Amino acid sequence: MISSVRVIGTGRVGSAVASRLQERGVHVVDGESAGLVLLCVPDGAIAEAAAGVEPGPWLAHVSGATSLAALAPHERRFSMHPLQTFTRARGPEQLDGAWAAVTAETPEASELGFELAHLLGLRPFALADDERSLYHAGAVIASNYLVTLQQAAADLFVAAGAPPEALEPLMLRTIENEFELTGPVARGDWATVERHAAALRSRRPQLEEMYAVLAKLTATLAPEAAAAGRERS
Amino acid sequence: MISSVRVIGTGRVGSAVASRLQERGVHVVDGESAGLVLLCVPDGAIAEAAAGVEPGPWLAHVSGATSLAALAPHERRFSMHPLQTFTRARGPEQLDGAWAAVTAETPEASELGFELAHLLGLRPFALADDERSLYHAGAVIASNYLVTLQQAAADLFVAAGAPPEALEPLMLRTIENEFELTGPVARGDWATVERHAAALRSRRPQLEEMYAVLAKLTATLAPEAAAAGRERS
Repeated sequence: MISSVRVIGTGRVGSAVASRLQERGVHVVDGESAGLVLLCVPDGAIAEAAAGVEPGPWLAHVSGATSLAALAPHERRFSMHPLQTFTRARGPEQLDGAWAAVTAETPEASELGFELAHLLGLRPFALADDERSLYHAGAVIASNYLVTLQQAAADLFVAAGAPPEALEPLMLRTIENEFELTGPVARGDWATVERHAAALRSRRPQLEEMYAVLAKLTATLAPEAAAAGRERS
Repeated sequence: MISSVRVIGTGRVGSAVASRLQERGVHVVDGESAGLVLLCVPDGAIAEAAAGVEPGPWLAHVSGATSLAALAPHERRFSMHPLQTFTRARGPEQLDGAWAAVTAETPEASELGFELAHLLGLRPFALADDERSLYHAGAVIASNYLVTLQQAAADLFVAAGAPPEALEPLMLRTIENEFELTGPVARGDWATVERHAAALRSRRPQLEEMYAVLAKLTATLAPEAAAAGRERS
């Protein structure tokens, strides 16, 4: 049972995690007496932080991309990555409903990682240490590159004289509709795709490559669009 | 005032629009006696459908990409594009809260377009006819390519043994957090970006180009990441 935790790091994740642990009645302690030390530091600082912790307690990190090997020389170790984007503008409620990847080398470590995730309000799943890069690339594509798409689309709206806030209901509904593909690529309407490309070339050339790469990828992912593309070529 | 409308086309948009008009007490008629004829047909069929309508009533289309010129020879014309993705699984409530681009050549046509949008539960804004391609490219990027990102990320999650449904709370929160960029590119953590690229090259090479193009674009859009990129190069 997790009764005392030392949280190292007061960034976006560390702050939300420490607050949530306190809400749950867990002793969040500063010293070395904790049963679990949780490293909520930047990825590049994990190995050094781990090396600075006296062996004894359980040690874990919350990074999505970092191998358990970074926790050496500790052997009682695991990682638990909350699959969420955090902001300083919100508190521990940011954890509610998000999933968490637990990576562990022993059943005991796995059990502790799952317990920690549940305690925080997260939905844990097991992730193999050597699958982290693939997993984390997926998380970055879904979250960070979603920001990039929105910024690109908002830039085009502003250039066209349309209000960029009009994009938000469209993006939310796209998710609510379980990512059902609509639009020109889904219809195999390549004339429209080519008009878009021409408009970008003339007005926002820095977005043309992204548009083309995503149009091509969308066609391969959408069975009907792919069929239309084959007819076209 | 819009009192009778003939809706041509019974696809996703036409069905939702006709139902909403009926809910609002507008006469949805089949014949030529309507005050407004609304073409809810595929983009490529608009010109032919317009040519088949006897001149007299107002004529409009609901396409985002198509010029008003497709409505020739009609002169009492406009377009009103609901900026939303529609599914057959939902009804007219799909229109609620979405925005709509109204394109018109006269104040009278503009007024009618705005009236139609409000009647349908949409939030109208004016869009110039020659800005349609840029505007529609933005809508496609925000909606259709969002589907592509999710499919790519879900593919990586499945390959890594992680549950793809875990992506949804992450994507929704990214929008709720007003597209605040987090993650490796925002931190200038290019070592992680390069590990992602290597994992994709080995396991999902078809996604490597998309990942690289979006990483590069994200760096240019994020001021701090751009600064880190300049230090790196």
